[in-house]
Amino acid sequence: MKNSFGNAINVTVFGESHGAGVGVLIDGIAPGIKVDEDFIAQQLTLRRPSGKISTARREPDNYVIQSGVYNGFTTGAPLCIFIPNTDTRSRDYTPDLPRPSHADFTAREKYHGFEDYRGGGHFSGRITAALVAAGAIVIPALREKGIYIGTCIKQVGQFILGDISHDREALLAIAESDYGLTDEYAISMMKDVIESAASDGDSVGGVLETAVIGLPAGLGEPWFDGVESQIARAVFGIPAVKEISFGSDKISVLRGSRANDQFTVKDGKIVTETNNSGGIQGGITNGMPVVFRTTIKATPSISKEQKTVNMSTLEEVTLSVKGRHDPCIVPRARIVLDSVAALVIADMLTVRYGSDALTSK
Amino acid sequence: MKNSFGNAINVTVFGESHGAGVGVLIDGIAPGIKVDEDFIAQQLTLRRPSGKISTARREPDNYVIQSGVYNGFTTGAPLCIFIPNTDTRSRDYTPDLPRPSHADFTAREKYHGFEDYRGGGHFSGRITAALVAAGAIVIPALREKGIYIGTCIKQVGQFILGDISHDREALLAIAESDYGLTDEYAISMMKDVIESAASDGDSVGGVLETAVIGLPAGLGEPWFDGVESQIARAVFGIPAVKEISFGSDKISVLRGSRANDQFTVKDGKIVTETNNSGGIQGGITNGMPVVFRTTIKATPSISKEQKTVNMSTLEEVTLSVKGRHDPCIVPRARIVLDSVAALVIADMLTVRYGSDALTSK
Amino acid sequence: MKNSFGNAINVTVFGESHGAGVGVLIDGIAPGIKVDEDFIAQQLTLRRPSGKISTARREPDNYVIQSGVYNGFTTGAPLCIFIPNTDTRSRDYTPDLPRPSHADFTAREKYHGFEDYRGGGHFSGRITAALVAAGAIVIPALREKGIYIGTCIKQVGQFILGDISHDREALLAIAESDYGLTDEYAISMMKDVIESAASDGDSVGGVLETAVIGLPAGLGEPWFDGVESQIARAVFGIPAVKEISFGSDKISVLRGSRANDQFTVKDGKIVTETNNSGGIQGGITNGMPVVFRTTIKATPSISKEQKTVNMSTLEEVTLSVKGRHDPCIVPRARIVLDSVAALVIADMLTVRYGSDALTSK
Amino acid sequence: MKNSFGNAINVTVFGESHGAGVGVLIDGIAPGIKVDEDFIAQQLTLRRPSGKISTARREPDNYVIQSGVYNGFTTGAPLCIFIPNTDTRSRDYTPDLPRPSHADFTAREKYHGFEDYRGGGHFSGRITAALVAAGAIVIPALREKGIYIGTCIKQVGQFILGDISHDREALLAIAESDYGLTDEYAISMMKDVIESAASDGDSVGGVLETAVIGLPAGLGEPWFDGVESQIARAVFGIPAVKEISFGSDKISVLRGSRANDQFTVKDGKIVTETNNSGGIQGGITNGMPVVFRTTIKATPSISKEQKTVNMSTLEEVTLSVKGRHDPCIVPRARIVLDSVAALVIADMLTVRYGSDALTSK
Repeated sequence: MKNSFGNAINVTVFGESHGAGVGVLIDGIAPGIKVDEDFIAQQLTLRRPSGKISTARREPDNYVIQSGVYNGFTTGAPLCIFIPNTDTRSRDYTPDLPRPSHADFTAREKYHGFEDYRGGGHFSGRITAALVAAGAIVIPALREKGIYIGTCIKQVGQFILGDISHDREALLAIAESDYGLTDEYAISMMKDVIESAASDGDSVGGVLETAVIGLPAGLGEPWFDGVESQIARAVFGIPAVKEISFGSDKISVLRGSRANDQFTVKDGKIVTETNNSGGIQGGITNGMPVVFRTTIKATPSISKEQKTVNMSTLEEVTLSVKGRHDPCIVPRARIVLDSVAALVIADMLTVRYGSDALTSK
Repeated sequence: MKNSFGNAINVTVFGESHGAGVGVLIDGIAPGIKVDEDFIAQQLTLRRPSGKISTARREPDNYVIQSGVYNGFTTGAPLCIFIPNTDTRSRDYTPDLPRPSHADFTAREKYHGFEDYRGGGHFSGRITAALVAAGAIVIPALREKGIYIGTCIKQVGQFILGDISHDREALLAIAESDYGLTDEYAISMMKDVIESAASDGDSVGGVLETAVIGLPAGLGEPWFDGVESQIARAVFGIPAVKEISFGSDKISVLRGSRANDQFTVKDGKIVTETNNSGGIQGGITNGMPVVFRTTIKATPSISKEQKTVNMSTLEEVTLSVKGRHDPCIVPRARIVLDSVAALVIADMLTVRYGSDALTSK
Repeated sequence: MKNSFGNAINVTVFGESHGAGVGVLIDGIAPGIKVDEDFIAQQLTLRRPSGKISTARREPDNYVIQSGVYNGFTTGAPLCIFIPNTDTRSRDYTPDLPRPSHADFTAREKYHGFEDYRGGGHFSGRITAALVAAGAIVIPALREKGIYIGTCIKQVGQFILGDISHDREALLAIAESDYGLTDEYAISMMKDVIESAASDGDSVGGVLETAVIGLPAGLGEPWFDGVESQIARAVFGIPAVKEISFGSDKISVLRGSRANDQFTVKDGKIVTETNNSGGIQGGITNGMPVVFRTTIKATPSISKEQKTVNMSTLEEVTLSVKGRHDPCIVPRARIVLDSVAALVIADMLTVRYGSDALTSK
Repeated sequence: MKNSFGNAINVTVFGESHGAGVGVLIDGIAPGIKVDEDFIAQQLTLRRPSGKISTARREPDNYVIQSGVYNGFTTGAPLCIFIPNTDTRSRDYTPDLPRPSHADFTAREKYHGFEDYRGGGHFSGRITAALVAAGAIVIPALREKGIYIGTCIKQVGQFILGDISHDREALLAIAESDYGLTDEYAISMMKDVIESAASDGDSVGGVLETAVIGLPAGLGEPWFDGVESQIARAVFGIPAVKEISFGSDKISVLRGSRANDQFTVKDGKIVTETNNSGGIQGGITNGMPVVFRTTIKATPSISKEQKTVNMSTLEEVTLSVKGRHDPCIVPRARIVLDSVAALVIADMLTVRYGSDALTSK
C-alpha cells in the first residue's frame, strides 16, 4: 500500500498541509494498551517548531482520537487519530511555480494538476505530526517491555555534534530532550549553525543517529522484510531523508577482521564484543542494540532566490520561497524517527509473538 | 511478505546454499516479454565468482524455467526459475559454531535449530543468483522502453575507484563489464586491494553506485512506497548491504541553496540543472537519472582466527572459516543491484501504467 | 490487512457504533474524479433506516471529507471520510451479556474485554455507512466508463420478490429505488413480511442479487485474486452475510451441457449465449454481466427473549434485545453491496489499466 | 498478490497443465513442523483421478521439495514444492477455439495470446495438486493441536448424498475416505449419477460440506479478513467453485429467533446450543465447528458438441472436447477444500499466536 507500512500493524497516513488536517490510521494494534494522552501531547510538542531555529507556523496540534480507544485503552480495532489544521496561510503558494527540491513538480507530473499544492499538500512534513501521535501510542508499551528508543543529532551542516549511549537512562534523556542533544555546548553550536544559515536566507541538513535497546533476538524476516529493509522503507517515507546506514559508520572501509562482531558470553548469554552490525545479521536482530543513522537534506524552502519554471507556460523565472519555513528540520525530525522506529518494532514483535504481543506478559 | 518485494510484480526468493537449489517466483509480470536465454546466462556469469578475487566455489548456474514462459515469451502467469545446486561441500560447516557477522546465530535464535545451517542456508548470498535471473527477464524489456541501468564500483576498502556517466552507452558498457569498472587502472587497483586482503586471510567491502536513466516522471508513491523506500527495502534484502544513499553524496553538508535542484527548460521539457536529489522528489521520479549508492560490508567469512561461542555448550572457542569464500563480493554485488533495481522499476511502471506496462507501446 | 480490501485501491474502515464516529480511508484512488456531494448524500440516505421497516435510530449521516479532495476533485492522495455519531444511546447495552449471533462474544474472546462493546462497537453495521460514502466516490466514475451496478431484493424470508434486468436503465432504476425493488406489489409484499416478523418481536433475512454491466473482458487475476475471490472477500466483510453465489442459481444441479455458456458472435464480438457463469471464467471477466447473489441472515437483534450467559459469572440468563434495531436489513444492505462491488471493480480496473484508470479516456 | 493467499503464511501457486510442472511456494511457515512424506503422497493420491468416474490422465504426482525442509522438518524458510508434469498430450488442444465455460477465452483477453493455452495452462485444475501438497504440510501440525478438517459430498447433480458429523473420528474417516463419503449406498449412488452423465458425453457438479473442529475462539479479523472472507477468497480460487455458504443452509429463510445461536454453559465453557452461524460471528471464530458448503459447477469439458467461435477468424464452429477429462470433479475437489481450509487456518493461527504458532506447545 502506498501510504502505509507494517505487516501485522499497518500504519497509514493521510491529510494535507492546508486542508482539513492530517491523520493516521493504525490497524492491527493490540487491545489493552494504555493510551497516555499527556505523552502524546508531549511528543507532539517536541516535534513542533519552536524558537528561532524553526518555522514560524504555530499550531497547537490538538489531536482527536476518532476510533479504536475506549476507556483509555486501545480496543484492538483500527485506531484513527486526526489533527485538524488551524493556522494555514494558503496565499503563500503559487500552483504553477514548483519550488526547487520540493515535491511540487513531481506531484504535478503524477496527479496532473489535481493535487492539493498548497504548502506541499499531502507531501508536507506536517503529516509527520500524525506519525508522531501514532508512535506515542506504542512507545509506552515498548518501554513496558524494556525496549527504549532514542535519537540524537550527530551532525548539522558540517558540524559533528552528539553521540548516544546505549543505556536506558541516556536514551530516555535524549528522547525527552528538546533537540536530541543533552550537551549544552553542542546545543549552542547547533543553534549557531542553524541561525547562521537562516540569516543568509539559507538552510542546513544533518545526520541523526537512532538506537534501540532491549529487543529480543530473532525479530525480522529473511531477505526483504529484514530489520534494515523494514526500517529503511519506513524512514525513507519521512520527507527529506536521503540516506540511511546501519551499524558502524566506518563499515565501508573496515576489513572483515575488524568489521566482524565476534562472539563472547556475558551473564550466561551469547553477545558480540563489538556492534559494527548494528544489532542485525541476515536481517534478524541478534539482541544487541539496533543502531542506524539517517541523513536529512537541507530544508528546500529558502528565501534566497532560485530558478524555477512556470509549469503552465514553461517560462523560466526566479522564486524566493516566502512561506514560513524551517532553516533546519533535523532537531524536529528526530522525534519522527523515534516514532517510526517504534512503530516498525511494534509491528515486528506482533509478527513474531502474535496479535497480543504488545500487551502480553 | 517475508521473502518478497513488489506491489504489482511480486518477486519471492527461496532456496538454500546447500539444499536442492535456489529459486525465484515472479508473479504479476506482463505477458509478451521476450525471454532472452543468452542474456540470462550472461548475467548469471557476471554474478558468478571468477578469478583469484572471488570464491573457489564453481557452479555452472544452469537454471530451469519451471513456469510462466511459453514459446519464448512470458505468459503473464507466475514465472518460476530454479537453479539447482551442484557443487556443495557441507562438511565445511559446523552447526554449533556461529560465524561472526554471519546470520548463523540469528537464524538459530529465530528458527530454534531447525534452520538449514549449511553454508548459511536460506541466508546465503547464493540466492542472489535467482534474483539475477529474475532481473534478466525484465532488463531487456526496460531497455526496449529506453530505460538503462548500470552499477559501478565507487570504492573498495579505502580506495576510491570508479565513476559513472549517465548516458546509454556508458551504462551499457558498465553493465556488461566484468567488474563494474571500465578503466583498466581502476580494475588493477581493485584487484590489488582485494588480493592484498585475501593474502592476509582477510576481506574488504566497498561502495557501489547505481544509475537509472530513461524513467518517466511520476513513478513511485507518496510516503512509504516512494522510490527511495521501495529501492531501499529491496536493496537491504541483499546480504551484506548496510547503507544506502540517494542523490549527491555530499547531501548531509550542503546548504539548501547548494543542495536544491533548480529548474530550467531543455528541449521544451522542464529539467533540473543539478541532480542532487538523485531524480526523486517526495518519493516520486522527476525524470532525471535515479542515482543511489550502496555500501557492502567486508565479507564476514575470513580465514583469520576469530572468537565465537558454541551455541549448545556456551563454550568460547576460536574459529577460522574454512569454506570457499570471497575476499570481496563488491564486484559481484553490482550485477545483483542492477537486477533488483530493474525489478523495482518494472513494478513501479506496472503500478502506474497497468499490467501490460512492460510490453505496451 | 485486517480492515482493508483492494490491491491498487485500498479501502480501510474504522470507527465504532457509539464512539466518535465511523470512517473510511481510500488509498490509491485516481486523481481527477469529480466528487458529487449530492450523490454521496443520496446514497447515505438510501442506506439509512427509514419507515416502520427499519431501526428507529436516526442519524443525519453528515459526513466530513478529511483529506484527498481539493476543489471538488480527488487529488490522488488518500481520501478519508468521517461520519460523526450523533444519536447514540449506550445505556441499551450490557457488556457482560452477549447477544446471540452478534459479535459480542467473539469480540470479548479476541479483545479480552478491551473492545468497545456498545452497540457492537467496531462490528456494528453502522460502519457500512462509511463504505457507502466510499462507494459514492467511485460509482459516478464507473458510470462515466459505461459500468453500471444494481442490486435487487430477490427474497425476503421465504418470499421470492424481485428480479433484475441487465440493462442500463433497469440498473439505474433499481439503484435509485427506495428498497431495491421497482415493482409496487413486491414492495408491499416485502413490507408485509417484515412487519409481520417485527410484530412478533422477530426478524427476517433474505437474498439480494447484484448485477454489473459494462465491464471489459480481462479483469481479475488467476487463482486467488479472481473476480469471485475479490468480490466474495469484500462482501463477506459486510455484517450478516453468510452466503454468496455467482452466475446461475441452478449451477449445482445443471449438467455441463446445460451449464456451459456456448460462444457466438454478436455485433462482431464474441459473446456467450447464456450467462450461467455470471460473466466470469477462471476468475477473469469475459465481458458479460457479472452477477452474484448474497444471502443476509435475519437481524440477530430481536426483542423476543433468548438465552445467553453472563461472560463474567457464567450464569445463564435470558435477554430481550431492547436497543433500536431493524427487523430486516436486506433493503438497506443492497446499497452497501452496490458500494462494495463498485470499489472492487474500481480496484481491478486500476490494477489492469494503471493508477489513472478511473479518469483516463 | 495474484496467485497467493494468506497474511502470515503466504501460499503462492505456479505452473501449467502441459508445461514443466506445477508448484507451490509457502512463505512464513513455522520451523519445526515434521514433514510426513507418506501423508503428502496419500493426499496427492486422494486428489488424483481414479476409476471410471475420473479423467484418464494418469500422473504419478511425484513431487520434489525444492526448499524449506531440512532433516525432515520445516526450517521456517520458504518451502517450495514442485510436481513435474510427465503425461501431457498437447495435441488435444486448439488455441483458437475456446472451450465453453473454460478460461480459454478470458485468458486470451487478458494475456493477448501469450498464455500457455494447452490444457488450460495456468488455469488448469492440475495446479490444485500443488495446493494439496501444501495442505499436507500443515494438516498434521493442526491435528497435533486438536484441529481436524473433513469434507463430505453433500450433493452430486440433483442427488443428496452425504452428511458430516462434527467429531474427530468422523472427520478423520471422511478425510481418509476415497470419495468424501463413508456410506456404501451413497457411494454407489454417486457413481451411478456420474457414470450416467459420462455415458451421455456430459458432466455433473455438486455440493461439498467442510467442517473444522478444535479451533480456538478469537481467530479471524473484523471486516475484510474475517474467517468467511478469508476462506471464501481462497476457496473461490479453486477452479469451478461458484458458491460458498457458511453455517445453516436454511439461513436465508430462518427468522432471527430460529437463526440465532443462543448461549449456554457446557463443561464450564460458554457454547452455543445451535450452530447456525457455522462457528463464526462478526468474522471471528466462537469455538464451535466452522462449517461451510462449496458448490462446484459441472466440469465444462464434455464430449457433447457445443458451439464456439474461432477467436482469430470469428467463425462460429462446433466443438467436442476430446481431451481426457472428468465427468465430475466433486469427489476430487474435497481433498483440495481440506487443504485450502487447513492453509487458511494455519495462517490465522500464525497471525494470532505468532510465527511459531503451529509448533508451539
